[in-house]
Amino acid sequence: MNHEKASEEMIEHLRKAPKVALFSHISPDGDCTGSMLAIGLALEKMGKEVSFYNPNTVPSYLTFLPGSLRIRQELPSPQPKILLFVDCTDLGRVNLSRSDISADSIVLNLDHHISNLYFGDLNWVDADASAVGEVALTLINQLGVEIDRDIATNLYTAIVTDSGCFQYSNTTAQTHRSAADLLDLGVDLSRIHNNIFNQKPLAQIKLLQRALESLEIRAEGQLAIMSLNAEDFRESGAGLELSEGLVDHARSIVGVEVAVLLKEVGLQEIKGGLRSNLWLNVNEIAALFAGGGHKRAAGCTLRVSMDEAKQRITTAIEEALKLGRDHERT
Amino acid sequence: MNHEKASEEMIEHLRKAPKVALFSHISPDGDCTGSMLAIGLALEKMGKEVSFYNPNTVPSYLTFLPGSLRIRQELPSPQPKILLFVDCTDLGRVNLSRSDISADSIVLNLDHHISNLYFGDLNWVDADASAVGEVALTLINQLGVEIDRDIATNLYTAIVTDSGCFQYSNTTAQTHRSAADLLDLGVDLSRIHNNIFNQKPLAQIKLLQRALESLEIRAEGQLAIMSLNAEDFRESGAGLELSEGLVDHARSIVGVEVAVLLKEVGLQEIKGGLRSNLWLNVNEIAALFAGGGHKRAAGCTLRVSMDEAKQRITTAIEEALKLGRDHERT
Repeated sequence: MNHEKASEEMIEHLRKAPKVALFSHISPDGDCTGSMLAIGLALEKMGKEVSFYNPNTVPSYLTFLPGSLRIRQELPSPQPKILLFVDCTDLGRVNLSRSDISADSIVLNLDHHISNLYFGDLNWVDADASAVGEVALTLINQLGVEIDRDIATNLYTAIVTDSGCFQYSNTTAQTHRSAADLLDLGVDLSRIHNNIFNQKPLAQIKLLQRALESLEIRAEGQLAIMSLNAEDFRESGAGLELSEGLVDHARSIVGVEVAVLLKEVGLQEIKGGLRSNLWLNVNEIAALFAGGGHKRAAGCTLRVSMDEAKQRITTAIEEALKLGRDHERT
Repeated sequence: MNHEKASEEMIEHLRKAPKVALFSHISPDGDCTGSMLAIGLALEKMGKEVSFYNPNTVPSYLTFLPGSLRIRQELPSPQPKILLFVDCTDLGRVNLSRSDISADSIVLNLDHHISNLYFGDLNWVDADASAVGEVALTLINQLGVEIDRDIATNLYTAIVTDSGCFQYSNTTAQTHRSAADLLDLGVDLSRIHNNIFNQKPLAQIKLLQRALESLEIRAEGQLAIMSLNAEDFRESGAGLELSEGLVDHARSIVGVEVAVLLKEVGLQEIKGGLRSNLWLNVNEIAALFAGGGHKRAAGCTLRVSMDEAKQRITTAIEEALKLGRDHERT
């Protein structure tokens, strides 16, 4: 079934239903949360009874979203007939299996992931959409609900999150037109951006400063390596989770193909995060140290001193860079 | 004269002129450079002879912009009759005074700064535009030139730069609609974003490290202030233009309303860049020091020592924060 046909039938089911239960995925982000809330608030404007489910609590940076306090970690009981899953490739993304769902339920699957498993009775999967928020906007418009500021705030947050603030390559002209329509509806841009992007703990900025201070450039500018030892975490007051993403600063340097951040997480225990820009397979590098991941992002743990870890990883990367260059030449 | 009337006359002058000289401001950024180049390329498509002037060389991260290699640091000689200034609040922004300009020249002033001094014979100043790139897009459309990919690339870069990738509060529905139209024209989003956001000179990362090292938090966490002295620029090997955007790191800290970056640009000459998140009008703060800009982004120059500059600006901001809070209470 093409998604135009699925979308029509989905709209029809939602129009008729007195009650709808909405679901979004584990480790909730702005897209699944904002889209689920927007659709739920729209259905309420149509007079329906709505419940919101997510396996995890809402992250603090998303609690400004209208309706977010109503998201529950318990399944609705009794289950309504119509269940709408938002931004989920499969039921596993909600920590559920088919046996958790009443046999006579109608499962609606609204998503934008190309890897979606079409697990629903009706599947509206638009892989061209940068965010499921774009699909949710279309759905709400087709339901004929007038989008108010609360709904618009949820939808704008969904879109701005999953398009990487319109920077990711999935951003289309349609993404911008959706954003424009939502701004016309009175979305408070500053408030949303302030919540999503401008809420970094001071400790994270201090940790970034220390990481940058340690920056070394090797392999004729192709490798940028940084390190954070236990003292850096202690003195900046940052937990390990605040080092997330810092390696991207090293990766953003002109000419750099591979960036590494080494973190001392215990005595003689060094975690390495590896990123590459264009061609180097860092999954293979991480595998040399019993780690793994993807081609452009991988990790590994070395049970040696920081100096030793730095030397081993640098040597491995320098060799891979040289091999890659030789390979390119042939 | 309202800007609709000025714009019509400006279009008329540009249509008739066989030659046009274009100017953009010192410490060139993506907005002034992209907008100037876009208009120049459009005028060339109309068969006109065009020259591009900027007091400084193009920063390396902007050399991918079509036409950027043609920007000169020498004034055109002889001067054509029509001179178009792009993104300049006054002639000082181009390091020029009125005596540098032939008496019979017609000065066209195309800008989006609320602090523009209306120094032109015709002044098209749209303070609602997030970027002068939005005004340039309107101008090119009104000239009737078909926008090709080179022009679109310049305009998109202008808009994405000055709207802070659609994050700054100056972003409007129209900003997104402009971006959508430019994406429809085949702009290569990944290439632009890779150039703008992932081609940072190593010197800029070193400068960021030094800026973060200087970070101080004042006013109960509402003010984040950083400073870069001449030694910081020298030892990191960075020119002034690489300090662009660093202030946003201070602004991203949770609880911060206003962020300041002070730069020692000469002996007893401190440039301050001010940004606010939600409510403080930094244009008014900058005005206290004979500077200006926008509500959420402004700049000023103080002819004192770094310590003195830091103290004066901190005091002014602390007072404004206090007044604002008192005002909110009443």
